[in-house]
Amino acid sequence: MANIEDVLNLDDPIFRGFIFYNALLILKCMAMSALTATRRFKNKAFANPEDAAAQKVKVRTDDSVERVRRAHLNDLENIPIYFVASFGYMLTNPAPALALTLFRVFTAARFVHTFVYAVVVVPQPARGLSWGVGYFITGFMAVQTLLHFCH
Amino acid sequence: MANIEDVLNLDDPIFRGFIFYNALLILKCMAMSALTATRRFKNKAFANPEDAAAQKVKVRTDDSVERVRRAHLNDLENIPIYFVASFGYMLTNPAPALALTLFRVFTAARFVHTFVYAVVVVPQPARGLSWGVGYFITGFMAVQTLLHFCH
Amino acid sequence: MANIEDVLNLDDPIFRGFIFYNALLILKCMAMSALTATRRFKNKAFANPEDAAAQKVKVRTDDSVERVRRAHLNDLENIPIYFVASFGYMLTNPAPALALTLFRVFTAARFVHTFVYAVVVVPQPARGLSWGVGYFITGFMAVQTLLHFCH
Repeated sequence: MANIEDVLNLDDPIFRGFIFYNALLILKCMAMSALTATRRFKNKAFANPEDAAAQKVKVRTDDSVERVRRAHLNDLENIPIYFVASFGYMLTNPAPALALTLFRVFTAARFVHTFVYAVVVVPQPARGLSWGVGYFITGFMAVQTLLHFCH
Repeated sequence: MANIEDVLNLDDPIFRGFIFYNALLILKCMAMSALTATRRFKNKAFANPEDAAAQKVKVRTDDSVERVRRAHLNDLENIPIYFVASFGYMLTNPAPALALTLFRVFTAARFVHTFVYAVVVVPQPARGLSWGVGYFITGFMAVQTLLHFCH
Repeated sequence: MANIEDVLNLDDPIFRGFIFYNALLILKCMAMSALTATRRFKNKAFANPEDAAAQKVKVRTDDSVERVRRAHLNDLENIPIYFVASFGYMLTNPAPALALTLFRVFTAARFVHTFVYAVVVVPQPARGLSWGVGYFITGFMAVQTLLHFCH
């Protein structure tokens, strides 16, 4: 059995990639909050009475705001579990090229998902495919981890 | 004070259990997305105009879809904080039998919660109890961690 | 390059602070569930037909419940990504005093955010500022991590 120091190692390319792409995904998630706020002010569609009153409007929902919020919720459903799945997967002694490719493809897929869902609405199957790529990678990592740690 | 290598160690049963049950919980969370999609198509209840149009229906909500979504949101409220709570708890030098029991009971409780909430609706207190077991375990771990790391 | 044992070390003040403040934030998130349940019973406003029927009322939404739920969702949008951002940031060899200050200010900002959003409604910019402090810290940590791990 490998030592943990061989895996969680600041010189290890997999671990460095894990940290790097996670930071990119965090910034992507953060962009959803900024996009929601921008659209709330642009469309004067606020969820809190005190925010609406400050703009002299009533609380209301707006389709373009709700779309960003659905994309953001989809991030919350998919990205935190990926963080934990990829942590476990790193410990299964994967080939570095495969692990880094999975990190990159997951990250790219989530950027594409946000873009086609909430920035420019691209017809299906763009959104479904980009979601599915991330879902498949998370599932692959979780299953590999289960198989590796089940005995 | 123990060295971190003694705790985050690929031979340590607590750490192996942490990784293993987290992977199971990830797959459980992922099942919620699949269940939501299945019910959306079965009931032709879509949240996005482009999805509804492809099925020649209007955007609408459906009780059985919303139920799965509430169960999924409950996962998002409870499972990511458990991942972090159990990571901290592992570092408090717990008895392996206790730590592994807590991991197993939490995992089982979340599977039961999903089943009685969203798959077969079982009368209360089934849902409340299964949620409460997970909540209590997360709280116990967080408090143990605070007490252990407060000085 | 530093060894990971120098960073993820049970004697290291940054790592100890990371674990300690994360546990505090977990308890804060958990308080949202308790507050939601309390207000649901107080206002007899339930999301599930079986819960409403047990109290002999119909399913309905209530403003004070929805306010707590918005604050809770804001936690879900901000706190899990902070956990991961601060983990990466710890590995960038930050000054201990700075890192600990950021952990403390983030934690305090999230407690303030909950208080002014959902406990006592304080006029803006209290909520916006407390949210912004946490958002800025998470972004700072993610950017520092990207810069440190990009080569």
